[in-house]
Order: sequence, then structure tokens, then C-alpha cells
Amino acid sequence: MPLAIDVAIAKTNKYASRDSGDSAEVIERPGGGLSVVVVDGQGSGSAAKTLSMMLSSKAVSLLKEGVRDGAVARAVHDSLFAYRHGRVSASFDIVSVDLRTKTVIATRNAQTPVIVCRGGEIESLPTTSGPIGLYHFTRPTVSQLPAEPGLALVLFTDGVATAGDRIGSAGFDVASYLAESAACALGADELANRLLAEAIRRDNNRPADDLTVVAVVLRDHAEEPLIRRQSVRMPLP
Amino acid sequence: MPLAIDVAIAKTNKYASRDSGDSAEVIERPGGGLSVVVVDGQGSGSAAKTLSMMLSSKAVSLLKEGVRDGAVARAVHDSLFAYRHGRVSASFDIVSVDLRTKTVIATRNAQTPVIVCRGGEIESLPTTSGPIGLYHFTRPTVSQLPAEPGLALVLFTDGVATAGDRIGSAGFDVASYLAESAACALGADELANRLLAEAIRRDNNRPADDLTVVAVVLRDHAEEPLIRRQSVRMPLP
Repeated sequence: MPLAIDVAIAKTNKYASRDSGDSAEVIERPGGGLSVVVVDGQGSGSAAKTLSMMLSSKAVSLLKEGVRDGAVARAVHDSLFAYRHGRVSASFDIVSVDLRTKTVIATRNAQTPVIVCRGGEIESLPTTSGPIGLYHFTRPTVSQLPAEPGLALVLFTDGVATAGDRIGSAGFDVASYLAESAACALGADELANRLLAEAIRRDNNRPADDLTVVAVVLRDHAEEPLIRRQSVRMPLP
Repeated sequence: MPLAIDVAIAKTNKYASRDSGDSAEVIERPGGGLSVVVVDGQGSGSAAKTLSMMLSSKAVSLLKEGVRDGAVARAVHDSLFAYRHGRVSASFDIVSVDLRTKTVIATRNAQTPVIVCRGGEIESLPTTSGPIGLYHFTRPTVSQLPAEPGLALVLFTDGVATAGDRIGSAGFDVASYLAESAACALGADELANRLLAEAIRRDNNRPADDLTVVAVVLRDHAEEPLIRRQSVRMPLP
């Protein structure tokens, strides 16, 4: 049976902050498939927003030109390092479903792990690369997985991983939470929405940081005709 | 009450064609708000797909850099005209919700009208500019509307406007169809899905051309916290 790619992004701002330092974009890859770019700019508010928009702009341009993900991550880092002299950092993630190589690729400069569901099992893939912008020759951590039905991948910014920390809760173990809530069986929208809702709840409904969750789910489908659907819901303050 | 922006895109390929010559992308504007870029490359199949991806790539890059919509349309035209010498054309649309000017702007090089719902009334705004790529100094048709709750804007590629033509039906008057189906009261997803389904039905379930529908709906909201949601569903052949 043919494959369907479902991508969902859910994000919210730090409490009482108008601007989110997280930005997320989804684009179609010129060789086929999709890429999601997530940038978490250092700090919060307007400066962080400008930084993350600038970096996501560069990433989206390069990806749309067909540049491979690893080169995009290096280019975005190099440019930030050249112009901000190692004084400004950002976490930077690309998740792509690449139809040429038939793989799902997470290219990450971050500290949070990426959670993977395969064959009903949940696995947490650590990210050892750290953020971009601080040191010469920063390289991304790359995880490449075969694009198969049943594969789900969940990525989140550090505000999710540290949700609840400031009110003294135990650290948020996202992999265990997803395992307990049988999240591998969920669709992408439901997965992203539930995880974001749980992070907000752990922060007592007042997020201590910008929060972004991305879910990519591959499934079989028997749809006919093939209709691609895309939607954005953006409530303004 | 604050405003929420809902955007939905629904698209399908010409029957028995693997590639769609239509491409559609949604991105966040650096100054705030969203832009949707829709390109319908001349012809169908793989060559049309490559053309439309190349043009949407250029448009997305410029928009993400903060270039104003009218300049983006001119730049994309000029580049196509310079490199293809007036031999290749494409329809090219940008619909933006711009939070700086608090307007919705349709910047169009196409032949299909854009349908607008305001205060429960449906209006069809004609596009007189024609496609890009054929003549020197092509300019877009621009419609700018105040961003108010209740405003809905529906844009579609020419495959929708000509749906049913090849099987001898009368022309598809999209404005009348939307008026009859009380479409002004619908959400963006429902609006885009219904119009696409009707176009497919009129083509006897075998679309004679690539079909793309974009709906942008502004509404009041009382959501708290503010959660931005984005999703893509892409069934593969």
C-alpha cells in the first residue's frame, strides 16, 4: 500500500510574551517530500523572534534550492557564527521526509532528544551536537531512518523538555510520557497537540519558555484521488 | 476580540499524472502574519512540477527575507522571462495576511478571479494581469482588503475554473457555487475541501488538470493560551 506523510506542528509562546523565539516552517522539497525547520532563538521576546526568523529564512531558502540538509545546517551555523562572532546561539533542527532516499532524516543542533516510534516501540535518540552559533565548525547530529508505515518521529524545543522545572516538578521524560499514553498509535495532529498540552499543564498553564512540538507520522493509505491538504491556524494576541 | 488567521490548501493532480504542476507553500512573514504562494506551471507532469517548484522557491526566499509581495511577483517574473526568453509561462499568486498593514493582500498574475466574502456578501474580484513569463514588464493585479473578522478569501488555479469543461458541462461559476453553499460561514479547511471536491466531481472524478484551492479565513477567537497549529497531509502515489 502506498505511504502517506502526516506532519503536525503545535507551538505556543512563553507566558505573557507576545513574540515566540521559536519558529517552525514546513516546505516541500524540490526532490520530493517535505522538510520541517525548527529554530529556537536564544532568549525570548522580540530579539529571539527576529533571530529565529532570520535563521529559518536562510534554511528555507537553501532547502527550497535543493541543498542537502547537512549542508543547510552547516551553512546556517557558519553564517550566524560569522556575523554574530560566537555571541548568539540557537537550536536548529530539520526533519525531512526525503522521497529520493526513502528515508526520514533528523538533522539536529540541539540538546533535546528526538523520540522515535518504530514497530510499536519507543526510542529516544540523544542529540550531542548542541546549539549553533557558538563555536567554529559546529556539526549537526544526524539520524536517518527508513521511511516505513508506522514510523513516527517527535521533536520538541527545550521549553518542552524543561516544562515544570521552575515549579519544582521532576524533569519531563517525554519518551516515558508518550509510551504511557500509547502515543505511537496516534495521528500526527493528536500527537503534537497532546504533548504540547501536557507541557503547558506541567508549567501550570503559564509556559516558562516558548514551546514547540513537531510530529511526523508515516502511515499506509488507500485514498483516491490523492489530495494534499495543508492548514495553518494562527490565533493572534 | 482578537483575530485568528486560518489558512487551508487542498490540491490534487491531473488524473493519471504522478506530478502536479501546481505548487503551494505557506510561510510566516518576518514582519508578522502569513503568506501563501501558489504557482501553476505551464503544462503538466514533471516539467511543469520542476518549473513551479523553482518559481515558488524564489518567491518563498524573497518573502522570507521581508521583500514586499509586489516586488516578489515582479522579481519572479523577471527571472523567468530572463532565463526562458518568453517561452514559458506560469500563473503566480501570493495571498498574504500582513500584520504590519493589517490587511489581506492578493498579488496575482493569473486569469482566475479571487472570491471574497465580506459581511456575508460574496464578490468576485477579476484578475487582469495574466500569467508571468511571456512579456516584458508584466505586473501583478493587487487587491488589498482590511483584515477583519468575517473576511474570507478563496483562490484557485485554472483547473478549478475549467473543471467540467472537457466533458461538456457549463463553465464552473465558483462564486455562485460558494454563494449557494453558504460557504462564507465555513471554516478554511471545510471551504477548501468542499470547493476542491466539487471541482473533482465536475471533472467526473478524473481531474482534467492539476487543481489547487486556497482559503484564507479571518475570525474572532477567545483561545487561551494562544496555540499555533500547522499540519500537512501528503498521500503518495
